[in-house]
Amino acid sequence: MDAYKGDIIYTAAPDSFTVLQNSFILVKDGIIHDICQVLDSDHKNITLHDYSGHLIIPSFIDMHLHSGQYMQKGLGMDKPLLQWLESYTFKEEARFSEQEYAQAVYESFCEELIENGSLKSVIFATVHKQSTEILFEKLIEKGLSAYVGKVNMDMNCPMEIQEGTITSLKDTEEIVLKYCSQPMVKPIITPRFVPTCSRMLLQELGKMAFKYNVPVQSHLSENREEVQWVKELFPDCQNYSRVYNSFGLFGQTPTIMAHCIYLTKDGKELIKNNGVGIVHCPQSNFNLSSGIMPAAEYLNNGINVFLGSDIAAGHSMYIPDIIVSAVQASKIIHMKNPQYMPLTLAQVFYMASTGPENLFPGSGKLQKGMSFDALIIDDERKEGTVEERLQRFIYTGGKEHIKERFLRGISLKKSRV
Amino acid sequence: MDAYKGDIIYTAAPDSFTVLQNSFILVKDGIIHDICQVLDSDHKNITLHDYSGHLIIPSFIDMHLHSGQYMQKGLGMDKPLLQWLESYTFKEEARFSEQEYAQAVYESFCEELIENGSLKSVIFATVHKQSTEILFEKLIEKGLSAYVGKVNMDMNCPMEIQEGTITSLKDTEEIVLKYCSQPMVKPIITPRFVPTCSRMLLQELGKMAFKYNVPVQSHLSENREEVQWVKELFPDCQNYSRVYNSFGLFGQTPTIMAHCIYLTKDGKELIKNNGVGIVHCPQSNFNLSSGIMPAAEYLNNGINVFLGSDIAAGHSMYIPDIIVSAVQASKIIHMKNPQYMPLTLAQVFYMASTGPENLFPGSGKLQKGMSFDALIIDDERKEGTVEERLQRFIYTGGKEHIKERFLRGISLKKSRV
Repeated sequence: MDAYKGDIIYTAAPDSFTVLQNSFILVKDGIIHDICQVLDSDHKNITLHDYSGHLIIPSFIDMHLHSGQYMQKGLGMDKPLLQWLESYTFKEEARFSEQEYAQAVYESFCEELIENGSLKSVIFATVHKQSTEILFEKLIEKGLSAYVGKVNMDMNCPMEIQEGTITSLKDTEEIVLKYCSQPMVKPIITPRFVPTCSRMLLQELGKMAFKYNVPVQSHLSENREEVQWVKELFPDCQNYSRVYNSFGLFGQTPTIMAHCIYLTKDGKELIKNNGVGIVHCPQSNFNLSSGIMPAAEYLNNGINVFLGSDIAAGHSMYIPDIIVSAVQASKIIHMKNPQYMPLTLAQVFYMASTGPENLFPGSGKLQKGMSFDALIIDDERKEGTVEERLQRFIYTGGKEHIKERFLRGISLKKSRV
Repeated sequence: MDAYKGDIIYTAAPDSFTVLQNSFILVKDGIIHDICQVLDSDHKNITLHDYSGHLIIPSFIDMHLHSGQYMQKGLGMDKPLLQWLESYTFKEEARFSEQEYAQAVYESFCEELIENGSLKSVIFATVHKQSTEILFEKLIEKGLSAYVGKVNMDMNCPMEIQEGTITSLKDTEEIVLKYCSQPMVKPIITPRFVPTCSRMLLQELGKMAFKYNVPVQSHLSENREEVQWVKELFPDCQNYSRVYNSFGLFGQTPTIMAHCIYLTKDGKELIKNNGVGIVHCPQSNFNLSSGIMPAAEYLNNGINVFLGSDIAAGHSMYIPDIIVSAVQASKIIHMKNPQYMPLTLAQVFYMASTGPENLFPGSGKLQKGMSFDALIIDDERKEGTVEERLQRFIYTGGKEHIKERFLRGISLKKSRV
């Protein structure tokens, strides 16, 4: 058994931090066996890892990001969504037809996930089957936990990344079959978004998700122009959410939808009733002038909201940056609508460390019976309460303050220094 | 003569970048003597500093920050302005009655300015004369350029940092006399803001600024509650700007005012007509739920807008973070009022590198006759145009990419590694 000593802080519930100062987490086979204030004679054969004075926090989860846009981070930040896709993104994604390129980029991508402490993630790859498999293999090799989606897209996009419908389905099914029993890196059905998918593609992806009980991710109501486009494409559907729902891609299996800025009343109810998780990507929404997700309103209405970097529309893959932006975004909404209070740091930390229970069960809680998925933070200054120290780390710290990264009790090491 | 070779980029005007790829900046006695594409036989006795493949950009200017809040960065981020002052800030500033504390903190503070490439700044110290002098000496010792204000505050604040009016004036005048002929670190008259200054104090500070021709800085219209408070304190004044103006603290000598979120039409006209520079501090304004400065509207109306970190209401002292936030803030305004276009990166880079002409003449321009105040950026990836590389550095880079820092041609070195 291993014992990790330090100042433990996490969110057992979304509204407040749980703090256990100067305590021990006992870990056996990757699972938290106990948490205690002293190691007494009952605890035998223990290897002590003494991180006294350091913070022990749950590892971060990036619930929405595009590995195929990794090299594009920080470019095109002067364009709204649809122009940004045309002028930068589709061109960059097309490069993943080359496997050597995917090998090189995904090595760096995985390394950055580890460095940043984002040990769990839900990823959009590209349309390319081989490159997507390279990403699966890299993530497995690095010991990370993830859901990876080969992107599906058979219309309304440049020819070099447009798939045939049949090929798109066949490639997806092969990936699902190859990886669905993987313990750590699993497939997720990933239609890019409604406008780039034919009805047949959406229909068959819905069936495939159900047949293999595979989760689903996509984009929803990110931008007013896009919402209007979907309305024109599906005039028969009441709203954007209903389009996914009509194809069995909206909670029929575990589902997460990124952005969800412009939702109708019915759309919100469907999300809630179908148990769809939604992903707030504030950096991306600011950068593309998409809008601001009313996260506090959604939380009040019992919708589950998580956090994503959405690189490369978001420019930072470092989750504490996204936490700060999410708090700021909620303050901007609060200034306009004072009835919605700003999100607290505890609320957003919960969103950043606790994934959907049906995708990452037990995440975010450093409690008995849970997987030991944690970061050791050397916050240097040490002054103040544990909660203040966490706040200072989130607002002013950097990945250089993350000293160790544990996933299921295994220490993940950076290859780059 | 020294020659610096690299990819030069700066904003000669606010609306676009000037790019000189693979060029030489010739520097003599700290002044840019010439810029050329080749070093020919006319150029003799030249020491070449070859930064080929690196970016050469102007150094940053932080136009508004509080050195006395340096240790508080990243704390209290869940409170609006007036509560934040009460619960954290005033207590922290009170610690600067101890000179040992000031010595230690200001050493780190100056080091961080250098690391971040903020080689010029305009600083609020605290009310304490000795500690403020310590800050002057530290900045001089480090070779930085700055305006430093001993804060004036004789009412509406906790007793431990409240000054007597006479003492406040006497201490300020002594500092002005001691440092006004300093070439690099100069005094600036710094009434904290209207609510903490008696009429007599404001009156005499205005006279002092005029008598010694010393610039002025303060806060203006940061928050609705504060604007209301000023209205109650000065019912006879048309608006907040007019209060400063009535005491000769509004452009009678070079003046900058931080925040300026809630301005009346008359207030804006007074700013423009009196040539007052205003400082946009978007991180701070988000964190304290203050509001969003309509910077694009002000620029359209011919008002000069600069950029400030406003630590510790802002949590980052790294100017590229503030640039990104300023662009994002302008996008939030654009989404609400589409007639105001988002600020471009060039516009905000200009705000971040070009100070007011009456405080930092010639700043931001890597041109013949200007001071060589520049940063050498190793942007690692190198891919793309020089403008794209700068954008990538601003959005995704960090201070670790700043390889050299020059002020008046002198290389400033970090003491910390």
